[in-house]
Amino acid sequence: MHTPLPKGFKLGTFAAGFRKADKPDLALAVSERPATTAGVFTTNLFKAAPVVVAQELLQARKETRAVLINTGQANACTGAEGIANCRATLDMVAKATGLAPHDILPASTGVIGAQLKMDVWEKAVPGLAHSVGASTVEDFARAIMTTDSFPKYAHEQVALIGGKVTLTGVAKGAGMICPNMATMLSMVLCDAEVEPAPWQSMFERAVTQTYNRATVDGDTSTNDTLYGLANGASGVTAAGSDLPVLEAALVRILNKLAYMLVQDGEGATKVMHIHVHGARNTADAELAARTVGHSPLVKTAMYGKDANWGRIVAALGRSGAHFDPAEVRGSMCGIEIFAHEQPTDSNFDELLKAPLNERDIHIDITLGTGNGTYSLMASDLTHEYVSINGDYRS
Amino acid sequence: MHTPLPKGFKLGTFAAGFRKADKPDLALAVSERPATTAGVFTTNLFKAAPVVVAQELLQARKETRAVLINTGQANACTGAEGIANCRATLDMVAKATGLAPHDILPASTGVIGAQLKMDVWEKAVPGLAHSVGASTVEDFARAIMTTDSFPKYAHEQVALIGGKVTLTGVAKGAGMICPNMATMLSMVLCDAEVEPAPWQSMFERAVTQTYNRATVDGDTSTNDTLYGLANGASGVTAAGSDLPVLEAALVRILNKLAYMLVQDGEGATKVMHIHVHGARNTADAELAARTVGHSPLVKTAMYGKDANWGRIVAALGRSGAHFDPAEVRGSMCGIEIFAHEQPTDSNFDELLKAPLNERDIHIDITLGTGNGTYSLMASDLTHEYVSINGDYRS
Repeated sequence: MHTPLPKGFKLGTFAAGFRKADKPDLALAVSERPATTAGVFTTNLFKAAPVVVAQELLQARKETRAVLINTGQANACTGAEGIANCRATLDMVAKATGLAPHDILPASTGVIGAQLKMDVWEKAVPGLAHSVGASTVEDFARAIMTTDSFPKYAHEQVALIGGKVTLTGVAKGAGMICPNMATMLSMVLCDAEVEPAPWQSMFERAVTQTYNRATVDGDTSTNDTLYGLANGASGVTAAGSDLPVLEAALVRILNKLAYMLVQDGEGATKVMHIHVHGARNTADAELAARTVGHSPLVKTAMYGKDANWGRIVAALGRSGAHFDPAEVRGSMCGIEIFAHEQPTDSNFDELLKAPLNERDIHIDITLGTGNGTYSLMASDLTHEYVSINGDYRS
Repeated sequence: MHTPLPKGFKLGTFAAGFRKADKPDLALAVSERPATTAGVFTTNLFKAAPVVVAQELLQARKETRAVLINTGQANACTGAEGIANCRATLDMVAKATGLAPHDILPASTGVIGAQLKMDVWEKAVPGLAHSVGASTVEDFARAIMTTDSFPKYAHEQVALIGGKVTLTGVAKGAGMICPNMATMLSMVLCDAEVEPAPWQSMFERAVTQTYNRATVDGDTSTNDTLYGLANGASGVTAAGSDLPVLEAALVRILNKLAYMLVQDGEGATKVMHIHVHGARNTADAELAARTVGHSPLVKTAMYGKDANWGRIVAALGRSGAHFDPAEVRGSMCGIEIFAHEQPTDSNFDELLKAPLNERDIHIDITLGTGNGTYSLMASDLTHEYVSINGDYRS
């Protein structure tokens, strides 16, 4: 059974040949009618051309009709020519589909610094336009993959006051991916009718709880983009008390996709779920969680299935979060390993042997200072990560 | 020829057997007379017992006679028992050497969380005391090694107004080292006569320019300690205009040792010298330099001898430093690779092929905003790093 596509949307994919392998590398999602559109973009100061163009388009209007994604070329660090090329691809697709150029949002992923191959685009666009309606959600998710090892998609069906609506999300990537390759890209389609302001703010809130809490290597790409299109084709309007229901479904979808991004992190064998409680405030909790999640020593210990509480403690101690060391308690996979500034007496090495073989490792930390909490999903650091990112040219 | 030891100091080393290998693991430096003493310690909130004890001792008095270092056991996360054990080792060494316990500063490195083996200490201390005067600087530097692959020492002879004085420094470690092992430890001996206040502040300033600008994995240990002992045995007093001369020599020594720490970083094959100029202020320059130096993607690229400017640019863009991307310029090994938001035209891949085979890689970044500068030495990220830290138990 295929993943359901919300009403009033059609998908197309095409193998243009931006990459060597003969597999789809162009994807187009089209809404039958104007869709209320949300956009969340990278915070990197170096923004790729499609990010710059999309932000301009969404500044002018909150309704669009389509999302156009190419893989193989990131169109990042390409200057004014990159911006012009990006706009030209929108013109081409507009001509081939009968849409207006400003109805189409671009997103790119791939090698940084090279200009788009416009001749390849010219040849591919008619085929892409022709395919619209023939591709499934799985096809689409597969077409936007770069070094991903599996396609990433999730959906929710939600009963609102006026009836059922469907949300379907796709994503690709895992932080900054592979040699010169960038980008986490994601798109959520929805057939509810939603006003622009709550739709946008729903995405902004949802991202802070999901994608922003997933990390592979701490490197934020120049192309990160998330689009949300709500076209109202279900005939159901989401407003008032329906909005939190819709938002909860959105959070569940993005959370599933975020999990997949970490799971598929370069070379990753583990997903750490780091939960910090009892911090002075949320910022301190986040600082503590991120310091543990980004520590190369903690990440390699997880890869080595090593109940190395000393590295977690050392990371907390240098995190900059305020706390009294005497109040800190820590557990791994539900077993307390650290309290009162010392390891617990229990033979946790033996107790943790089996749990540390699992993919999901829960690390719970209580700082004992206040009510701040934060949760983070982080991958481990493996030989394969170094091979993927270091052996590129050797 | 042996590295000179400043006048009035004697060194001893002993193989107590804290570790399996039968090699020296206890080291004692003794000054014939009371020495003005500086101490700089870890900023980690979890402080090892010897750090707590040493900070108390130096709070009370700025003169000491000896530094006692053991490897194999960090005496960190050991609670009140760890503090009592640390004090007991000072008592033992005091009895065996005729010093007072408060004359001796402790430092430990090794496995976190285990209590000191006091029976091993009892047996070893007489031998250690007996060896004082028989060990060279090289012997001492070797006795404090843990996973270090070579002993680290440096010296300077400085002509002050009153005559020549000698400074000799030793160090061990490279960030947080090896499975459950912690610690960067360092000691500088000097035979000048110096007042406590300028001596301490000289060390604090020197550390911000040297050790604090060296990074392997960004993990700050629970045991980091640097001692400086100036005993005046040369008969030369350093005061007034001599102080900056002495400080410059100290900075040179610590810089050499910092370089060795990065060079000997776990699995390291490269030393990146990251220089950021033109930042809004020093804090922004440091932020940019550290983000590049800690980026796993930049570190693996250096390991792979890959002129991957895109990763440096992406790291700068997410660093949080304020700048206008259009003003940023970057060079690697003296060759400009990035300007005006694009890669330079030159065929830098070919030009950089030979320089990237060298150990020292210079990365120069100009942010084009202000006068802030910062320099950082950082190691690369290699398969061997993951093996050392991840394969511990497998």
